[in-house]
Amino acid sequence: MRVGVLTGGGDCPGLNAVIRAVVRKGAQTYGHDFTGYRDGWRGPLEGRTVPLDVPAVRGILPRGGTILGSSRTNPLSADGGVRRIKENLAKDEVDALVAIGGEDTLGVAARLSDEYGIRCVGVPKTIDNDLSATDYTFGFDTAVNIATEAIDRLHTTAESHMRALVVEVMGRHAGWIALHAGLAGGANAILIPEQRFDVDQVCAWVESRFRTRYAPVVVVAEGAMPKDGEAVLKDDSRDSFGHVRLSGIGEWLAKRIEERTGKEARTTVLGHVQRGGTPSAFDRWLATRFGLHAIDAVHEGDFGTMVALRGTRIVRVPLTEATARLKTVDPALYAEAGVFFG
Amino acid sequence: MRVGVLTGGGDCPGLNAVIRAVVRKGAQTYGHDFTGYRDGWRGPLEGRTVPLDVPAVRGILPRGGTILGSSRTNPLSADGGVRRIKENLAKDEVDALVAIGGEDTLGVAARLSDEYGIRCVGVPKTIDNDLSATDYTFGFDTAVNIATEAIDRLHTTAESHMRALVVEVMGRHAGWIALHAGLAGGANAILIPEQRFDVDQVCAWVESRFRTRYAPVVVVAEGAMPKDGEAVLKDDSRDSFGHVRLSGIGEWLAKRIEERTGKEARTTVLGHVQRGGTPSAFDRWLATRFGLHAIDAVHEGDFGTMVALRGTRIVRVPLTEATARLKTVDPALYAEAGVFFG
Amino acid sequence: MRVGVLTGGGDCPGLNAVIRAVVRKGAQTYGHDFTGYRDGWRGPLEGRTVPLDVPAVRGILPRGGTILGSSRTNPLSADGGVRRIKENLAKDEVDALVAIGGEDTLGVAARLSDEYGIRCVGVPKTIDNDLSATDYTFGFDTAVNIATEAIDRLHTTAESHMRALVVEVMGRHAGWIALHAGLAGGANAILIPEQRFDVDQVCAWVESRFRTRYAPVVVVAEGAMPKDGEAVLKDDSRDSFGHVRLSGIGEWLAKRIEERTGKEARTTVLGHVQRGGTPSAFDRWLATRFGLHAIDAVHEGDFGTMVALRGTRIVRVPLTEATARLKTVDPALYAEAGVFFG
Amino acid sequence: MRVGVLTGGGDCPGLNAVIRAVVRKGAQTYGHDFTGYRDGWRGPLEGRTVPLDVPAVRGILPRGGTILGSSRTNPLSADGGVRRIKENLAKDEVDALVAIGGEDTLGVAARLSDEYGIRCVGVPKTIDNDLSATDYTFGFDTAVNIATEAIDRLHTTAESHMRALVVEVMGRHAGWIALHAGLAGGANAILIPEQRFDVDQVCAWVESRFRTRYAPVVVVAEGAMPKDGEAVLKDDSRDSFGHVRLSGIGEWLAKRIEERTGKEARTTVLGHVQRGGTPSAFDRWLATRFGLHAIDAVHEGDFGTMVALRGTRIVRVPLTEATARLKTVDPALYAEAGVFFG
Repeated sequence: MRVGVLTGGGDCPGLNAVIRAVVRKGAQTYGHDFTGYRDGWRGPLEGRTVPLDVPAVRGILPRGGTILGSSRTNPLSADGGVRRIKENLAKDEVDALVAIGGEDTLGVAARLSDEYGIRCVGVPKTIDNDLSATDYTFGFDTAVNIATEAIDRLHTTAESHMRALVVEVMGRHAGWIALHAGLAGGANAILIPEQRFDVDQVCAWVESRFRTRYAPVVVVAEGAMPKDGEAVLKDDSRDSFGHVRLSGIGEWLAKRIEERTGKEARTTVLGHVQRGGTPSAFDRWLATRFGLHAIDAVHEGDFGTMVALRGTRIVRVPLTEATARLKTVDPALYAEAGVFFG
Repeated sequence: MRVGVLTGGGDCPGLNAVIRAVVRKGAQTYGHDFTGYRDGWRGPLEGRTVPLDVPAVRGILPRGGTILGSSRTNPLSADGGVRRIKENLAKDEVDALVAIGGEDTLGVAARLSDEYGIRCVGVPKTIDNDLSATDYTFGFDTAVNIATEAIDRLHTTAESHMRALVVEVMGRHAGWIALHAGLAGGANAILIPEQRFDVDQVCAWVESRFRTRYAPVVVVAEGAMPKDGEAVLKDDSRDSFGHVRLSGIGEWLAKRIEERTGKEARTTVLGHVQRGGTPSAFDRWLATRFGLHAIDAVHEGDFGTMVALRGTRIVRVPLTEATARLKTVDPALYAEAGVFFG
Repeated sequence: MRVGVLTGGGDCPGLNAVIRAVVRKGAQTYGHDFTGYRDGWRGPLEGRTVPLDVPAVRGILPRGGTILGSSRTNPLSADGGVRRIKENLAKDEVDALVAIGGEDTLGVAARLSDEYGIRCVGVPKTIDNDLSATDYTFGFDTAVNIATEAIDRLHTTAESHMRALVVEVMGRHAGWIALHAGLAGGANAILIPEQRFDVDQVCAWVESRFRTRYAPVVVVAEGAMPKDGEAVLKDDSRDSFGHVRLSGIGEWLAKRIEERTGKEARTTVLGHVQRGGTPSAFDRWLATRFGLHAIDAVHEGDFGTMVALRGTRIVRVPLTEATARLKTVDPALYAEAGVFFG
Repeated sequence: MRVGVLTGGGDCPGLNAVIRAVVRKGAQTYGHDFTGYRDGWRGPLEGRTVPLDVPAVRGILPRGGTILGSSRTNPLSADGGVRRIKENLAKDEVDALVAIGGEDTLGVAARLSDEYGIRCVGVPKTIDNDLSATDYTFGFDTAVNIATEAIDRLHTTAESHMRALVVEVMGRHAGWIALHAGLAGGANAILIPEQRFDVDQVCAWVESRFRTRYAPVVVVAEGAMPKDGEAVLKDDSRDSFGHVRLSGIGEWLAKRIEERTGKEARTTVLGHVQRGGTPSAFDRWLATRFGLHAIDAVHEGDFGTMVALRGTRIVRVPLTEATARLKTVDPALYAEAGVFFG
């Protein structure tokens, strides 16, 4: 049996750990051969392959990124996309695919599997942890650790100058990174996309914190939005090219804090450092176990499925579940964190 | 209501995060007052207290250790221990206790609660992660991260000299740290207390690894034991004072590897660095949530319980469950890791 | 003898290490008493003091920021500033001052010492390492380490997506952080304030790097400027409030790279994380030694001086030297790095 | 011109950074070709080569160890060693050698160069920083950072249990790592090979520290020795095989502290983690600059020399100087640290 492997979507610490586990167990336990497809679905679409065997995956466990490259190519919107993929798989003598990716990549895998009979097993990947089918996705713990270390550092600089510091972290639609890193870093306010925030409330927290002789650190997800804030946002969260800037909300909020509290405020946008570099131990463990179980599913012919974490166990769920529902932060969980605000 | 807080047993990153969460939520949400008891159960036994309020817990979230100190004092084996604790609690006007600790500390809490009517809520703490009532305990993730970083470093030194490196990690009765750090660090053999190991098999893995032009790293839990190895162990795992040395098994194994494979082998015993210092983001998050839920239980009068993690939720279980059963590594889980050996 | 201590200017990892060393050696070896002045020169100006003795400095060595607070207050431009300082020192019975700070703070110390007979010893502090009187200043090594780790992380994300990544680091007038972190991080271009850069040349390096199947990481100091670039800069490096944005040059450059090479480019602005948090071992060592030697100078009555590093020795130089000349990156040193560009 | 490159002796973070810099500048600036010799002097002795060009050195900058392997082979004590090296160099058409290593490796280079006319340039490497010809060697800063982080972690565990913690660090003949990491980590005693220590004095420091409500951390270089201690050492610093154990002195000292102070004491032996893994930013910078200047020396035909750091400049010194004198810790410098003991 020959198995193709591809990684799609934004990169994420742990991708190489999945690839390694799939290949090690497939080759050593099941006698599989492997074909690496380059740059996500563009690989099987355009027939771009790379050799993939046990020597090729040695040493990659601690390395960030993906040795297979990634892209956001959607083969279903390409001319004759499904046909070309089938032809390439046939030409490469690939019997099944392990697709590692997020909503988009797995959405393609689900349709190729269900509608076109291409044998796929999925491994979920989203640094934002916003997939409802699994307790955690790999990459998330690494991002939270990086953001937490940054918040630790910002506390001391905030206190030396009695300034407010606003830290903008990843999370367009779900506030998991903000919530976890904010709690772990001792933030004095955490703002997430799931709940519009009230600027006056944030400023009240900031002022309350200043009264303790500590200085406030506010963690804001890039997708967080103020109540009634669109009008204002429209004015200054766009860059000179008219694009909404990734770093819009952090800077916008720091400005508001300065205006309303009369205290200095500074912004740090963590950006891409959150998704690069060596994975945390948890992410290596989770990614490795996902890989081992994905190749088990291939071996057992259990296609159209995706591996997922439930508690400490790895389970399989239908690929279609992967993309069914965004996992957003539960209001009760967010409320729990509120005791630390201010 | 006045709540006493104590931390018992070996120290563990995250203890301060629990204390802070208990006090912040208790004081701010429920209007509790707090008394800190020093050095575990010795505190209420001997009436050793320390002031504990919101200002006292500022800034302690990222700090390792415990601001309350710890000890292994067992008040149940002290003369009139229960009576003295009751008297001290009465004198201090303490209505309930939050006891943070492992099997021993919580075992005392369970008996004080069940047999003597002292109102206790428990928070589980074991760096070894060997409590069956909870998916994870805080401190474990930090220890695994530290061990994994050490293994990463040892790989490069092993390869430069084509030596075998044996890393001894914590785990007297359960191999969780060895298993997680070994998998995350790409170990070529992982040896745990749950399964006697075969020295010949380990040497075969070591030699197989050398043939790849990489060098082997063997992770061994301090409590791991060779098959039929007691006789030999007896001879050289004791120090000059006749005590069994913590670092016995690592050195013993390195010696065997040298003898049987003819290759150089070196040992590193990670020791106490695994349990000190700032907690990982995961541990801060878990410890904080444990603290928040423990004080909820106090507020609701749900005594004789312990907080626990199930999936991503915090639940309550009877304190007696905490100590009921050691959570050891499941043979199936250990077998999963075997594909990476050699 | 009673010695006053103050920290001025931007915060910097290592300030607490200096304070601790001054107090430990002064109190234990020379029998000095100490008065802490809060918030830089504002402290003696407004008589804001804080108790400072050996217990007060326990545990602060690894902590970022400054326990004394900081400000940019210039007492020489305050009404009767010198007189008020003299009065406050007299009232506090302070015989001499240890002033820890950068160009501005030490410039004040130099004038107070030379023109007004206030007995001062200086300790140089600039995270930018741009003081000609000393080989290195503390804080710099920490900043370089943080920036290097970020660059390490960005390499993997750049490669996964074959994007250019622009990292903006601190350095308004001197490119030391950019040069050191860029070299240590394997940057494919390093742009510093000391030399106008040619956008076409940068794009050529970017394209050359893409041809290697690696992706380019460009490190740019916040004060770097393009040749003939003011016109363009004027348009889009200002925020919606008309202020020049700290992050102007990184974003500006990423945009140019996208336009000219047709490749995606992303920017990361490291910002305040570079100056917060625990100091590196080197910075703790240097700051500690600066503190020890500064209090020696006080004890010996060698006022109007500043401690400085020359090779591995700590020497004393006139305080006036501290501010005499900005230490910028030597063109030959910068040229040395050029072999790694592209 | 074809240049051979080899790395000898114990591994050290930064070796790969030197190799990369040598090859990048040699190939790109001077048009050199390269031959990699495997495993130190064994490479040219036995004709073991590995291809070495610009693609081969991509991505190795942040990696610990050495892509060329290392050994302690001394070709001067091998039969016909010099002749065989000359023959192999001739066969490989290698015109000059860059030898990266410590006292032994460079001692060979010095003799091959001076006595046998083999054209060598040396790059000094010792993690112990004990070479008198240079202010610092690469690898040292990384080791000090790792040891300092470990000491940070041990402080919190020491305090939680009010135990003494003894940390044994590298340094057989020179105490640089102990001194720097001890100062940076806030150790309460630092013991180095250069000065016999007095166990009673150490115990007095330990007890003095316990009186502050903090717990003592003692840093001891592996080569440190007690006054009049040989007799005792003889008994219990040897393992069951009669070998002196690397970890002898730490365990020995902890035992003495327990006996004399009645307090618990624990030992941590950092061992090989100090020399593995990714280099610090300082070490990458220093190693890179050493590499650049070494290949300059080759290009200029300045053989028989070694690069060295003086202040912030790289200079050249005769290879013979490299091995002339061990750089031990100056008593005055050690005395400076004494203020923190106890």
